[in-house]
Amino acid sequence: MMRVRLQVAYDGTAYHGWQVQKNGNSIEGELNRHLSALLQEDIQVIGASRTDAGVHALCNIAVFDTETRMPAEKISYALNQRLPEDIRVQESSQAPSDFHPRKCKSVKTYEYRIWRGEFPMPTVRLYSHFIYTPLDVGRMREAASFLTGEHDFKSFCSAGSQAESTVRTVYRIELREEGKMLILRISGNGFLYNMVRIIAGTLVECGKGRYDPVHVRDILQARDRQQAGPTMPARGLMLTGYEFV
Amino acid sequence: MMRVRLQVAYDGTAYHGWQVQKNGNSIEGELNRHLSALLQEDIQVIGASRTDAGVHALCNIAVFDTETRMPAEKISYALNQRLPEDIRVQESSQAPSDFHPRKCKSVKTYEYRIWRGEFPMPTVRLYSHFIYTPLDVGRMREAASFLTGEHDFKSFCSAGSQAESTVRTVYRIELREEGKMLILRISGNGFLYNMVRIIAGTLVECGKGRYDPVHVRDILQARDRQQAGPTMPARGLMLTGYEFV
Repeated sequence: MMRVRLQVAYDGTAYHGWQVQKNGNSIEGELNRHLSALLQEDIQVIGASRTDAGVHALCNIAVFDTETRMPAEKISYALNQRLPEDIRVQESSQAPSDFHPRKCKSVKTYEYRIWRGEFPMPTVRLYSHFIYTPLDVGRMREAASFLTGEHDFKSFCSAGSQAESTVRTVYRIELREEGKMLILRISGNGFLYNMVRIIAGTLVECGKGRYDPVHVRDILQARDRQQAGPTMPARGLMLTGYEFV
Repeated sequence: MMRVRLQVAYDGTAYHGWQVQKNGNSIEGELNRHLSALLQEDIQVIGASRTDAGVHALCNIAVFDTETRMPAEKISYALNQRLPEDIRVQESSQAPSDFHPRKCKSVKTYEYRIWRGEFPMPTVRLYSHFIYTPLDVGRMREAASFLTGEHDFKSFCSAGSQAESTVRTVYRIELREEGKMLILRISGNGFLYNMVRIIAGTLVECGKGRYDPVHVRDILQARDRQQAGPTMPARGLMLTGYEFV
């Protein structure tokens, strides 16, 4: 028996999310199906981040056990021959037999991309959210500064979360401009359900001038989802980094 | 009668190219159809660059005549309401009544994107070409330097070109690395059929070590398509700049 760890990149556009669903394709379902066919065993992967429908990833982590004699490093090559082109394993390797991706301490990094302009740009539409209203990035940076550190992020968590605690640590939030693209980059020890998309929505409200940046402190203290900004659309969100510490 | 100029951005993935085809969608066809419905006239646009199937554009130019009383600047807003989301007009404006986009002197800029890595990356797959073999970018830059200036680019032109002369001027070629992405950027006064994709294919052969960079001079002199490298796939190509001079 060998435990194998996959680093999985995908374009989430065509999927109902990471998790296997009754109706609709999922990343997990595609991995299970093609790994089972490749290894001639019933394989069920465990994912590190159960990304939502339409969310993308450069490096989600999946783990599974197998009896195969194929070297772990070769599985990526064989599996990629079978996977649809919107899913590609970037690396496969042997993991310790007790390695569980959701029970390890980790630093996750997400990016939320916003295309600012008069009109949407077709070539980036699947990987960003279009905003017409001008955004004051300085105000957004100021607002973001109140979110770093350990906080109770209950206000930034959608209903339906199964998390026992809503306390998380955000290590870093950056806003970077690349021409018309504005990239919000956030690293933390874990994120609640929709947390990055609600943070993005809240910072955008600040950028539009609807909230004062310091109001973000009040939102945190309220521990009430209604106080924060809207949940931004999935297509702008991408899991870009995963580090076990 | 008013002549209107549109700056058109599109994701070419789903199209058979710019030009109206008997079978299959085209950018030109979509523009004609939706402009005709919007303005209640039979509109036929003239395009500046007749990009191939699968090629993308940030700023192709289309021109048409209309009797509408709608201000030219407003047409972009109304038209974008009707267009599919993979085509977006970025600007509409009135043009001189004798303006013809293919009869004006212009500087066109194309980018060809190459994703280098062990495996393809799903989130960039529609807008780049994946290459596994390591590329020596220094050799590619040296090879590119022989292509700037006025040359007969017959060796870099696919059969089926209707161009009378195969002499063109390349103003600039740059190779830029952004992580695993390698971006070939080329500006010129005009490009022959498949010229950018054949230049990209030839530079890649140099980068792989199959040609010596100075061999590009021999290829130019041969005036023979067989001497140059392969035509690279369409999805890596994007028209990124159009300037009338």
